[in-house]
Amino acid sequence: MKEPVALAVDLGGTWLRAAGVDAARTVMHEYVVSVGERRGTEQVRAILREAVGHVRECLRSSGRRIAVAGLSVPGLVDSERGLIRFAANLGVSDLPVADLVQGLLGAPVIVENDVRAATWGEWRWGAGEGADPFVYLNAGTGIAVGLMWGGRLLRGVGGAAGEIGHMPVVADGDPCRCGGRGCLETVAGGWGIAARAVRLAAAAGMPLPEGAAAREVCEVAARGHPVAAQVVRDAGDALGRAAIMLTRLVNPERIVLGGGLFAPGSPLVEAVRQCVEAHPLRDVPPPEVVVGRLGIRAGLLGAACLALEMLAA
Amino acid sequence: MKEPVALAVDLGGTWLRAAGVDAARTVMHEYVVSVGERRGTEQVRAILREAVGHVRECLRSSGRRIAVAGLSVPGLVDSERGLIRFAANLGVSDLPVADLVQGLLGAPVIVENDVRAATWGEWRWGAGEGADPFVYLNAGTGIAVGLMWGGRLLRGVGGAAGEIGHMPVVADGDPCRCGGRGCLETVAGGWGIAARAVRLAAAAGMPLPEGAAAREVCEVAARGHPVAAQVVRDAGDALGRAAIMLTRLVNPERIVLGGGLFAPGSPLVEAVRQCVEAHPLRDVPPPEVVVGRLGIRAGLLGAACLALEMLAA
Repeated sequence: MKEPVALAVDLGGTWLRAAGVDAARTVMHEYVVSVGERRGTEQVRAILREAVGHVRECLRSSGRRIAVAGLSVPGLVDSERGLIRFAANLGVSDLPVADLVQGLLGAPVIVENDVRAATWGEWRWGAGEGADPFVYLNAGTGIAVGLMWGGRLLRGVGGAAGEIGHMPVVADGDPCRCGGRGCLETVAGGWGIAARAVRLAAAAGMPLPEGAAAREVCEVAARGHPVAAQVVRDAGDALGRAAIMLTRLVNPERIVLGGGLFAPGSPLVEAVRQCVEAHPLRDVPPPEVVVGRLGIRAGLLGAACLALEMLAA
Repeated sequence: MKEPVALAVDLGGTWLRAAGVDAARTVMHEYVVSVGERRGTEQVRAILREAVGHVRECLRSSGRRIAVAGLSVPGLVDSERGLIRFAANLGVSDLPVADLVQGLLGAPVIVENDVRAATWGEWRWGAGEGADPFVYLNAGTGIAVGLMWGGRLLRGVGGAAGEIGHMPVVADGDPCRCGGRGCLETVAGGWGIAARAVRLAAAAGMPLPEGAAAREVCEVAARGHPVAAQVVRDAGDALGRAAIMLTRLVNPERIVLGGGLFAPGSPLVEAVRQCVEAHPLRDVPPPEVVVGRLGIRAGLLGAACLALEMLAA
């Protein structure tokens, strides 16, 4: 008799990833599709139906029983009601994703915000194992934090805990996607790094390719482009200061860095480590600062793990 | 038969306050003494012995039984071992205060950091009642935060959670008592407000009295002293930004402001409120921002409440 599996889905603003995952952490029949320009309620429902249907059929063919489903989704999430309350990247609000997937599978469904799902994944199955308190600092297109202690994930009264990307760090700074100014993301989020580098490099007469992403900015910085290098240093400083703030407030045992900007070898990983080491507090050991082990599957595996544990509870 | 009472002590860097407190929140035989220049292990042991002895005798005379004791103490605390690990203000390290008081009373003793004791007090008996998550922002001589959710107080791996006073907020700023530079306390702590105001006012040829405290700085600012007014505005901005940071990270239901700088009517209360209101985040209701109800007894009552609840558990 084969073990039951969780059908896990990680729905992002750019990609959707889905798979079967069992308690041995085996990933089966992984399915990845570009979300691209498919925005709005109907499109998102269709993408979810396709992904869940595809993985469901593969699992059935291989004789595995789907016992539960776990969804990692962006934006503001109401886990109790199984809703995406609001996700700007997907153009949806109050979308009952749990009901949709439960209707397709006839199995119980758990829904969690993507960064919190990844936090749970790294804490149970990754680089955060056993750490208490535990901080997961995610920097990709946006920036957010997952925070746990005593085995509990902080969600906040409105499901909005962890949104430090929209913490103001520059007085009268650049406009942010949230409508504010000078938020952390404008300096250190993937979109902010790209926008600042393109604008400042053009102004300095050393233009970068139009549409350059944060990864390319890091690459040309490493090859000596002075404006790109300064933009990357500014991002590293801002992320480092955020890590010190988290260290002071939470006194965590470990900080795990995740998301595209903290890929292994990224200069931003070293910047955060050095900043934390350069700001010790008497008699308080600094947290370990390590890169996540689950990589781009952190949200997927976290959602699977949450779902399997809900089943076992 | 009279109800048993907790003997509660709030030991600060400037004052010690002790009293008997029962579950009806009645404060009995309150004893307040200046700690003044009495620093170091022997002096602190003596102050504690005197205070506990005095309140114990008063309670005995009135026929009350001391069932438990609760101590609110500054600095780094090891609650499990009942130690003050390190308190710069008192000049002590690794002082076993629980053993000392248990020896005097023969009753169980609980020890908590002062800001966390006050956090518990406001959450159970004060302005934070029922809020989840709950943030207590304390600004007096120093600045620190207490954070709770799901009925649990965050202590941190080394008992150092909440020390946001030592979060760097000004690059290459003024030296801080912690050895760092530009920490939040250098701009917005009571000592930092006083030091900046005295120094900047002297440099501008409008000197303040030597030894002016933060309260006097607020008073002369209100009477129109331009340098003092700017120093108070800077402090309000820094505290407001800290409150936004806490709002983004924790998404609390309520933030309670405590400590001497947030006395009712203080301009800093309004500054924090306005800053939080001026930085909304889409679809996320801002936290209520209110002044604590327990005032200068927050630590005392919190320690009593923790002790009585330990007894009941």
